[in-house]
Amino acid sequence: MSVIAVIGGTGPQGTGLAYRFARGGHEVVLGSRSQERAVVAATELGERVGSATVRGAANDHAAKGADLVLLAVPYDGHDALVAELAPQLAGKVVISCVNPIGFDKRGPFGLDLGPTSAAEDAQRLLPDSTVVGAFHHLSAVSLNGDADLLDHEDVLVCGDDAEAKAAVIELAATVTGRPGVDAGALRLARQLEPLTAVLISINKRYKVRSGISVAGFDHSVSLPASGPVGTTVPAAG
Amino acid sequence: MSVIAVIGGTGPQGTGLAYRFARGGHEVVLGSRSQERAVVAATELGERVGSATVRGAANDHAAKGADLVLLAVPYDGHDALVAELAPQLAGKVVISCVNPIGFDKRGPFGLDLGPTSAAEDAQRLLPDSTVVGAFHHLSAVSLNGDADLLDHEDVLVCGDDAEAKAAVIELAATVTGRPGVDAGALRLARQLEPLTAVLISINKRYKVRSGISVAGFDHSVSLPASGPVGTTVPAAG
Repeated sequence: MSVIAVIGGTGPQGTGLAYRFARGGHEVVLGSRSQERAVVAATELGERVGSATVRGAANDHAAKGADLVLLAVPYDGHDALVAELAPQLAGKVVISCVNPIGFDKRGPFGLDLGPTSAAEDAQRLLPDSTVVGAFHHLSAVSLNGDADLLDHEDVLVCGDDAEAKAAVIELAATVTGRPGVDAGALRLARQLEPLTAVLISINKRYKVRSGISVAGFDHSVSLPASGPVGTTVPAAG
Repeated sequence: MSVIAVIGGTGPQGTGLAYRFARGGHEVVLGSRSQERAVVAATELGERVGSATVRGAANDHAAKGADLVLLAVPYDGHDALVAELAPQLAGKVVISCVNPIGFDKRGPFGLDLGPTSAAEDAQRLLPDSTVVGAFHHLSAVSLNGDADLLDHEDVLVCGDDAEAKAAVIELAATVTGRPGVDAGALRLARQLEPLTAVLISINKRYKVRSGISVAGFDHSVSLPASGPVGTTVPAAG
């Protein structure tokens, strides 16, 4: 069991993933800019999962006490918020599920960031942390729904550190019931993040909650894991 | 039945899709820069599908006689080749499955094209044609394989013209056994094209032939089609 902080934990994606992690037996700290909002959301979530392992805290306190930290913040304001938390995130595995998406009258689209991504930007702003990209494509509605597991979906995981990536690949199973798929280097977040625009477009058109499943992939085959970080670091206060 | 020209039809992706279209009962013209190479490849393909409905021709002749034209050319040199064919492609639906992908020692990656895509570039170069993006994610090995249908995969289709898109959504069923998925506007090709880098990365890592399947999507639901182009235009010589 790990202590997982969800920065931006009061938004729909953050709350939904927090719910899944808590259901999976992890201790979860919901972080928010407002400590009060975080505590209210954590109380609700704690009642829903029926356990006392969900707490709320201001983002910096949430980050400080965690083994693993999920960034589930809007892209707007992302860089400033991440930079602010650098001291608390030092030495930790930081998961980014941030989607730089825009909307106009023609629908959703991936923002043109140039040759970078939110995850790579976070890594540059957090030189003492290890950033992994994952959990971009799960709909907030499904995450917050009652289904036991989102077992028709895959979590694509990208990163440059094998150990950190292995921890997140393992964590994905608490959401989908199967390990995440190692999608490659962190820079492939440039492809994973804006793909969400395609899924939103499909959702609108067909009135569904779409996600990604990797076809032709044998889920019984997993990569040799080299000591998942998330389960070996002792839980901090 | 349509006449479908495959520009770049002697490459693995082009040959594979041509094979699927021919199996699906369409008349196929393989196009190549070299008429001779096209004829050789078409003869081989015709023997494989056991029908005389596969021909080979120089790219411009192939394009001229077709109802639907698939661009299956490398991104390198794409713009010049497309511009050259503008007269032959005028008035037609042009499908782009072009993937602007790079490789270096860290693996595959999507090229940074700025706020555009190969499909949008083709549309700009072909103002009198209607460009649709599709068929980016099917592995050439699977396409050229013996399986009846690639029925575990989805063909994501993007475009700005509803009628042209409907024709391609229908054509996808000759490959996967089910209609393609309307992914939205043509500009979403910016997301679909480089996603292939992620699939190649997964293939290398897990020794699989991965593709995309849209999770949470009910394949029995199809969009109201407004007179698919590919089946209503009479086959030209």
